[in-house]
Amino acid sequence: MKKVFLVGAGPGAADLLTLRAARVLQSADVVLYDALVSREVLALTKSSARLINVGKRCGKKLFGQEEINRLMVSLASSSDSVVRLKGGDPLIFGRAAEEMRALREAGIDFEVIPGVTAASSAAATAKISLTDRESSSRLLLTTAHHSSQNQDRPLATLQDREQSLVVYMPGRDHAALQDQLLRSGVAPDTPCLIVSRISLPEEEVVATTVGSLDQASPLRTPSVVIVGEVARQAPSTTLHPELEIPRFGPEFAVAEVRQDA
Amino acid sequence: MKKVFLVGAGPGAADLLTLRAARVLQSADVVLYDALVSREVLALTKSSARLINVGKRCGKKLFGQEEINRLMVSLASSSDSVVRLKGGDPLIFGRAAEEMRALREAGIDFEVIPGVTAASSAAATAKISLTDRESSSRLLLTTAHHSSQNQDRPLATLQDREQSLVVYMPGRDHAALQDQLLRSGVAPDTPCLIVSRISLPEEEVVATTVGSLDQASPLRTPSVVIVGEVARQAPSTTLHPELEIPRFGPEFAVAEVRQDA
Repeated sequence: MKKVFLVGAGPGAADLLTLRAARVLQSADVVLYDALVSREVLALTKSSARLINVGKRCGKKLFGQEEINRLMVSLASSSDSVVRLKGGDPLIFGRAAEEMRALREAGIDFEVIPGVTAASSAAATAKISLTDRESSSRLLLTTAHHSSQNQDRPLATLQDREQSLVVYMPGRDHAALQDQLLRSGVAPDTPCLIVSRISLPEEEVVATTVGSLDQASPLRTPSVVIVGEVARQAPSTTLHPELEIPRFGPEFAVAEVRQDA
Repeated sequence: MKKVFLVGAGPGAADLLTLRAARVLQSADVVLYDALVSREVLALTKSSARLINVGKRCGKKLFGQEEINRLMVSLASSSDSVVRLKGGDPLIFGRAAEEMRALREAGIDFEVIPGVTAASSAAATAKISLTDRESSSRLLLTTAHHSSQNQDRPLATLQDREQSLVVYMPGRDHAALQDQLLRSGVAPDTPCLIVSRISLPEEEVVATTVGSLDQASPLRTPSVVIVGEVARQAPSTTLHPELEIPRFGPEFAVAEVRQDA
């Protein structure tokens, strides 16, 4: 029976795919991929595979969600092996719910191959744990992109500081994110890290605080923002050596760093 | 320079390791592993590698956290390649904060290789998305194991039902977890899934509700519990065919199922 594979591509580096994802990708006839999937991951496909970008190009959406669903169902009926490839893990902010619904309605069998989600890989880059028995017993994953009716909904409440927060798709407007965080009750002196182009050669980490987030330069997408006491653990040893890095504090403290390869 | 690799072993199946993790594991001289790491993952190591179980055996802790830290530091000084292998992702409920602190204090370089965390792999097994643009815009990861002073702290507030919750290390006492969830404001009719031995041949999924959680039989560890509207999406097609599976509801509705291999 024909089957569609919903596959997590991980953060970007090809060797951060799972062995199972790499195997399925290498034998795929058709790959529908998102804008967040890196070139080096796509390079794992066989040369005869048909690669279809259903994400964005130059900031413009190429396909609506309904069109992606229809295309996936139609290709599954005509091709031997269809992979739907998504950045990170398909089941965490990957819009997989809608695609699985479409496959079920069309009676098409599917399998999900999980991936390393952006929160895990960003923390690995920064060498911090997202949880800590002493300071952070909960981890909240959220996104800064809300539908228009949810504009004023708080992102999270971090008032007891026992919770780490990772914001997916924070966008390039750090002032808007800062505003959302402050309105949600996050203290201005809470440390945060912006991690961009995770695991790729152009990877960057910017260390700042929520109160100074609006002054951080926009970084290349994809990126995530890690907010909470755990971000304070980011050691100076992972920072670019020639930069003088101030420790986190309520004052403006931004530094661009690269992880050693 | 010598380096310790903190490596995520993923949920259990050896092919759910990342390519990078598999490569590092295959060349390791010493592997310190936790109880949650599966045999098939350990089978990837070379035959001359020294494998040290620093987790639990027969429910008893073999090493305290301080002892693990000391052992890791001492082995890093005497061995060429040391891997500290943890189930799932090391930075999500993996106690990596303490171990990274010990390595930093000892001046030992380390690298973190992220893994597929239990929430992602449990959801892949159940074929549900943990987030949904329509019903769940936030994902909270937490654990039911609290230090004694936090016994009465709520697990989460899910009152607006817009948040999915994944409880790591829920333990075998489902009545205690139910009590914690109800006291945290989770509605009794909220759907939930217990996913046990994720990705291994003896994998099991039990579908129930928070109000009926106390009546679910204890499953083999490791397991996670997924709580929230997203759990309702678990389709009957993933369930064991000869079982008559009631849809989720406020009434008692428990079924043991296996994912098709």
